[in-house]
Amino acid sequence: MHESIFDQSSIEKDNAAREATLRRDYETLGERLDRAGVAIDEIKQKVAAFTVAIPSWGVGTGGTRFARFPGVGEPRDIFDKLEDCAVINQLTQATPSVSLHIPWDKANPNRLRETADRLGLGFDAMNSNTFSDAQGQAHSYKFGSLSHTDAATRRQAVEHNIECIEIGKAIGSKALTVWIGDGSNFPGQAHFTRQFERYLEAMKEVYKALPDDWRIFTEHKMYEPAFYSTVVQDWGTNYLISKELGDKAYCLVDLGHHAPNVNIEMIVARLIQFGKLGGFHFNDSKYGDDDLDTGAIDPYRLFLVFNELVDAELNLPDFHPAHMLDQSHNVTDPIESLMVSAAEVLRAYTSALLVDRKALDGYQQANDALMATLSLKTAFRTDVEPILAMVRLEKGGAIDPVGAYRASGYRQKVAEIRPAVAGGSGGIV
Amino acid sequence: MHESIFDQSSIEKDNAAREATLRRDYETLGERLDRAGVAIDEIKQKVAAFTVAIPSWGVGTGGTRFARFPGVGEPRDIFDKLEDCAVINQLTQATPSVSLHIPWDKANPNRLRETADRLGLGFDAMNSNTFSDAQGQAHSYKFGSLSHTDAATRRQAVEHNIECIEIGKAIGSKALTVWIGDGSNFPGQAHFTRQFERYLEAMKEVYKALPDDWRIFTEHKMYEPAFYSTVVQDWGTNYLISKELGDKAYCLVDLGHHAPNVNIEMIVARLIQFGKLGGFHFNDSKYGDDDLDTGAIDPYRLFLVFNELVDAELNLPDFHPAHMLDQSHNVTDPIESLMVSAAEVLRAYTSALLVDRKALDGYQQANDALMATLSLKTAFRTDVEPILAMVRLEKGGAIDPVGAYRASGYRQKVAEIRPAVAGGSGGIV
Amino acid sequence: MHESIFDQSSIEKDNAAREATLRRDYETLGERLDRAGVAIDEIKQKVAAFTVAIPSWGVGTGGTRFARFPGVGEPRDIFDKLEDCAVINQLTQATPSVSLHIPWDKANPNRLRETADRLGLGFDAMNSNTFSDAQGQAHSYKFGSLSHTDAATRRQAVEHNIECIEIGKAIGSKALTVWIGDGSNFPGQAHFTRQFERYLEAMKEVYKALPDDWRIFTEHKMYEPAFYSTVVQDWGTNYLISKELGDKAYCLVDLGHHAPNVNIEMIVARLIQFGKLGGFHFNDSKYGDDDLDTGAIDPYRLFLVFNELVDAELNLPDFHPAHMLDQSHNVTDPIESLMVSAAEVLRAYTSALLVDRKALDGYQQANDALMATLSLKTAFRTDVEPILAMVRLEKGGAIDPVGAYRASGYRQKVAEIRPAVAGGSGGIV
Amino acid sequence: MHESIFDQSSIEKDNAAREATLRRDYETLGERLDRAGVAIDEIKQKVAAFTVAIPSWGVGTGGTRFARFPGVGEPRDIFDKLEDCAVINQLTQATPSVSLHIPWDKANPNRLRETADRLGLGFDAMNSNTFSDAQGQAHSYKFGSLSHTDAATRRQAVEHNIECIEIGKAIGSKALTVWIGDGSNFPGQAHFTRQFERYLEAMKEVYKALPDDWRIFTEHKMYEPAFYSTVVQDWGTNYLISKELGDKAYCLVDLGHHAPNVNIEMIVARLIQFGKLGGFHFNDSKYGDDDLDTGAIDPYRLFLVFNELVDAELNLPDFHPAHMLDQSHNVTDPIESLMVSAAEVLRAYTSALLVDRKALDGYQQANDALMATLSLKTAFRTDVEPILAMVRLEKGGAIDPVGAYRASGYRQKVAEIRPAVAGGSGGIV
Repeated sequence: MHESIFDQSSIEKDNAAREATLRRDYETLGERLDRAGVAIDEIKQKVAAFTVAIPSWGVGTGGTRFARFPGVGEPRDIFDKLEDCAVINQLTQATPSVSLHIPWDKANPNRLRETADRLGLGFDAMNSNTFSDAQGQAHSYKFGSLSHTDAATRRQAVEHNIECIEIGKAIGSKALTVWIGDGSNFPGQAHFTRQFERYLEAMKEVYKALPDDWRIFTEHKMYEPAFYSTVVQDWGTNYLISKELGDKAYCLVDLGHHAPNVNIEMIVARLIQFGKLGGFHFNDSKYGDDDLDTGAIDPYRLFLVFNELVDAELNLPDFHPAHMLDQSHNVTDPIESLMVSAAEVLRAYTSALLVDRKALDGYQQANDALMATLSLKTAFRTDVEPILAMVRLEKGGAIDPVGAYRASGYRQKVAEIRPAVAGGSGGIV
Repeated sequence: MHESIFDQSSIEKDNAAREATLRRDYETLGERLDRAGVAIDEIKQKVAAFTVAIPSWGVGTGGTRFARFPGVGEPRDIFDKLEDCAVINQLTQATPSVSLHIPWDKANPNRLRETADRLGLGFDAMNSNTFSDAQGQAHSYKFGSLSHTDAATRRQAVEHNIECIEIGKAIGSKALTVWIGDGSNFPGQAHFTRQFERYLEAMKEVYKALPDDWRIFTEHKMYEPAFYSTVVQDWGTNYLISKELGDKAYCLVDLGHHAPNVNIEMIVARLIQFGKLGGFHFNDSKYGDDDLDTGAIDPYRLFLVFNELVDAELNLPDFHPAHMLDQSHNVTDPIESLMVSAAEVLRAYTSALLVDRKALDGYQQANDALMATLSLKTAFRTDVEPILAMVRLEKGGAIDPVGAYRASGYRQKVAEIRPAVAGGSGGIV
Repeated sequence: MHESIFDQSSIEKDNAAREATLRRDYETLGERLDRAGVAIDEIKQKVAAFTVAIPSWGVGTGGTRFARFPGVGEPRDIFDKLEDCAVINQLTQATPSVSLHIPWDKANPNRLRETADRLGLGFDAMNSNTFSDAQGQAHSYKFGSLSHTDAATRRQAVEHNIECIEIGKAIGSKALTVWIGDGSNFPGQAHFTRQFERYLEAMKEVYKALPDDWRIFTEHKMYEPAFYSTVVQDWGTNYLISKELGDKAYCLVDLGHHAPNVNIEMIVARLIQFGKLGGFHFNDSKYGDDDLDTGAIDPYRLFLVFNELVDAELNLPDFHPAHMLDQSHNVTDPIESLMVSAAEVLRAYTSALLVDRKALDGYQQANDALMATLSLKTAFRTDVEPILAMVRLEKGGAIDPVGAYRASGYRQKVAEIRPAVAGGSGGIV
Repeated sequence: MHESIFDQSSIEKDNAAREATLRRDYETLGERLDRAGVAIDEIKQKVAAFTVAIPSWGVGTGGTRFARFPGVGEPRDIFDKLEDCAVINQLTQATPSVSLHIPWDKANPNRLRETADRLGLGFDAMNSNTFSDAQGQAHSYKFGSLSHTDAATRRQAVEHNIECIEIGKAIGSKALTVWIGDGSNFPGQAHFTRQFERYLEAMKEVYKALPDDWRIFTEHKMYEPAFYSTVVQDWGTNYLISKELGDKAYCLVDLGHHAPNVNIEMIVARLIQFGKLGGFHFNDSKYGDDDLDTGAIDPYRLFLVFNELVDAELNLPDFHPAHMLDQSHNVTDPIESLMVSAAEVLRAYTSALLVDRKALDGYQQANDALMATLSLKTAFRTDVEPILAMVRLEKGGAIDPVGAYRASGYRQKVAEIRPAVAGGSGGIV
């Protein structure tokens, strides 16, 4: 049994007031699904097995290049962050693992592991950082890291990634996620091809250090922090990387990293088809890499992504993409946003499970576009909250995580321990 | 000697009035370039060897889904179109080949070949059409062609492409361009993966029929006429196709077929690096696939594309992408637009030849972003019109193609022969 | 009592099989809403009063500039179209009026009125057409209509609009919708300011002819069929027009006419605030003016628009925007698409009625962004289908309009009378 | 005579090596223009009178939310910044005024004025900052400033703007620029209308404090730092603000603040037409508000904007929009980028002066789209660098500002005085 950060009885108390209603809603939903030939308990079982990782940096308040406005009780270090992650997992019962960012989360690996064990958490993919300069770093990443024109800078970036693998090995991680800010701000600043060749060469060095049972995820992004070109600009380049590197290399899809209007669910399908979908950084966006809460802007798009994932899950023997939230919480309590966002991911998964795939297949074969799309809509429109809440309840979590969290006064309590942080300008000045 | 569609002496007369000025401008430009270590005559020689193909459909007035407003003297058939193409080539001396669209341009191959020979024209890539239903066609392409769920429809589309190859063989073409409208208008309408599998299977059949000395070009497009998804949505999918098909398969880049803000020159660089750039459909656009005249909206972007092409030309042993215009001329005389657009393509090529690549390389190595980008800008800003005009003059074309064309009264003359066409609604009703 | 196009008893038969289930779902939904303090019957009553107009052109199959693939049983003229509209209204009980497009729908006004009366239909806004040339028209709109440089062409366009008003007066319409294709395809082609001045001058002529109890709606659109600039490019210009014209002038919002990523619901809010929201052309889109079925791509966006409308309905004394579908049905049976789309509009309205606005206001005041957005999400997630179906049932329509329609064999029956139409290329050739 | 920051003789020395060539190029350009009926000296005179302001924050290295990588010799305070601005003006002779940002540049007004006088500089528009929290500020702007739900916070923001006016009065500024980050990150977080009402009310308070000979500029921006909605999201809302405020209120256009694909030059034309164009924040962008160097990405778009400005300059009696650079220099020496960018602004202006407006008007009237657009292209293609350089030379600046600047070793010299700044993460952590 792991340690509970806050009193489990407060969850139980909150649940008590909601349980009867939940059971009633679960029952009527079950009745409706039953009519459609779907056994609600089987859905529930699948949902109960689904998890999504929390990024350590997600529990702190984010910022923009213009400013950062901290909240109260901000975590001071990775151990505070792990506690916040444990709270999220305790309430949602859906987020048992944490993804670390090095060097931000650098600490004694044994202490990391012990703390995580004690809190009932594990470690998801490791994240390297070569998009900002760490203090005392020999070579600056101002003009690039893994693709820098200078060999020593590339070497430093390679070694940093290898260090991330080493730390990961010590704490039980099984994957490395590599996102770089390399690119250019001016036409001509970088030679596209030579820059990419340098990147590939450097990544091959990193890949060599990857244990056999690890995966390496590369992440594409259209722009920011480079504003004319980025080295890994889209899934096409990302796919090429994964092919060049080898069988342990996969593409990571961040929902906010694409050009306007792009059909992301189709990219997901293509990567699945060619065996290179590694996983996701979930978030939502309206304009660019807005890093808003998952499903906050376009919940149907999220559902359509999961429609592809469930289809693959049913058809492929060994399909297990990584799921991670990656958001910037600028105006909400990060713990609340992460709990709601985890629920949104599970909601999209649950809805996608409800799609009548046999009927859909028939409509597709017959080019009955209207009924095909209504098949998806019918599943999407079904309010699956009772399933999500029942899963949480049965696993010991909260029927209403935000309600229970607010009732607990957790944020106020940690604010007494964790000193207030000053806000200020962002990167621009 | 081939036949001239209109009196060469009218070109000579027009040139006479402009030649002295041209020679003066060529001289002063030569002087400026010489200072920068560039021999203007060497540039001129390269430009003189550069050509771009005319699409047969380009000489007719285009339209939108809302309406088509024909001009006067519209070509009635492929033979009228070839005459118009010959005019363009006579005046610009840069467009010696024509790209046919089947079944629109279907005619006796011998007559096609003889007419082209007589007019001094050759045939560029063949274009198949499975995005609209030809009269009497057994199976409709309403729900797709090469990726249709129905095997007979796919077979019909395959056979149509093979027929295009056959016609092409008879008239001396060496390439087939395949663009399809297949996709879907609703989430769920098509199963992305199965649809793409069907497409690949069908394309492999087409590929089998491809002669050894031919190339096959596939063209990606983000949307239109399908508005939720297209089968070949971007260069990533296009690259996968070319890999699946084989060494004779290449990707065609239409400048207007990308998502907003996408860095097209980078896509060009990636396709070059991985040996899969087949060629271009040149045009310009502000919003979607607007099919505006090349360089009309963003001439610097066109230059940046050619910056990649010239770089490749200098570094790769066997680099010969296909160049074709593909525009919709809704408010201009198509002949004029095509002449100006061909000049824009040559202009971008010429400007890119002026880039001081040794200096640029030094700036890139040193991360001197400002001087690197100024290297490009300096070349772009140099007004190379005197080189373009001199090339035309020396090859027997017009110093000022539009001026000479208008002076000739060609359009009015053909309007007497070619009957007026009624306008009307576009596709919507 | 008006005439039913197809046997009402077939609707009743279809309903019979579904009624018990509907009543059960309505009951459990009512129970859930009751817990939240919402009386389901009050919601139902409001929904029952909500209608959306059908565009006459919507019942025909649409097309793109590449092709048009007609369906079977296409309406031959406005009287066939009215019959199809009557079917939609009979089944959905939500679409009692039809919006005509002149000259496409030109016919004897008395016959129009009598037919509509007989079918239980009325006439919504009149639509003029100056974006394509009608046969025999004196002046072409190739280079513009109301903003054309030629005074006679502008005059012709003004007179056409006045004629639309005259027809509308004869058949009981109360509004004129003006959308023009005027703009330019090249930088410099048109002088932006003079072009807009000409447009305003012409529109003032039209406005003068507007009866006192009419409204005039102008519609903005970013691009297409003009691809560099359009005269009424966005809501800013549209607002200026409505101010210049006067109190009977309002802005019409077509959901697909905006730049990528634009926050449409905010534009709606601004137009409401400044008293100039005229109404909507509902549809959905992923890329440009895709004219897909309403809610097919981003149902949450549609809900957010209705969130503004319901907010205004509650706060403004005299708020009655026009609602019309405007879609292009390329791959579905238009009748089916229109029925489903009308339901989507009502669904968004219904969901927006469920928002707890008092709670929302409290969260907004307290900057509780998370709970504010969850207020919307909770309403959106509630599956209101039982309310929509119950409204239809109680008004004499179909619980499942598509099911009842398909069961009736209507399309096959009219296909026997209405001859098949040949498909073909779209506007491009 | 004002003080020169670095030895004028070093400029003269650099010029000496380039002058003969410049005179030769100016002469041949003059000859070409003369043929077209344009007197080069008249153009030169107009260009000599054109200036663009430097933002004080522009001389520091910018950053992104991911990181900031400082350069060497970064200015430590506003007085260092003024010295850097003086260098820019000394070399370019085109940037005699500086725009301050409060509180970043807060200092004793007398000392500011004296320093500026000594350096030959004046003060352009004042910029307030309510998008980040200054140290010790009573109310946080986390959830908004001028539109905040809390009256005290709004009051604080109003007072800050009034303070900016007061400082501006003391140092000779004549305008206030107001850009706010207010908006929302979640649907529902803010009530669009009430938020805008609060903003207008607050701005009216600021407006009251505006001296009679001042102008107030409001700036629209589509997104960032708010990622779902911004209060002043586009020119439509911006126009409404300027109307609500009064005759001294104008709209400021930042070229990077629009939706993808938007026709910015048309917005400029509309604002001119309705008397509300206040001025510009010049920069360039490919994706969002990238704040790249002016003209670095799409120089033709910049030219098209100036095409509107020159047209207005010729037609309107009292047209004097404000011109300011607003860029983020992340990978270049800010002084170099600002010099080059100022030159780009002047280049676009110069090119636009070369447009043959009489001919253009004729083509527009005749709907000769091809010749109309070629009129613009011909002007754009003319390399006007000799005019720009001659203007600089004759005003005492550098023929080649970057060359002369690098030769002077200015950056290295100030780096000895100004201590190195540590880089680090941006706003995100």
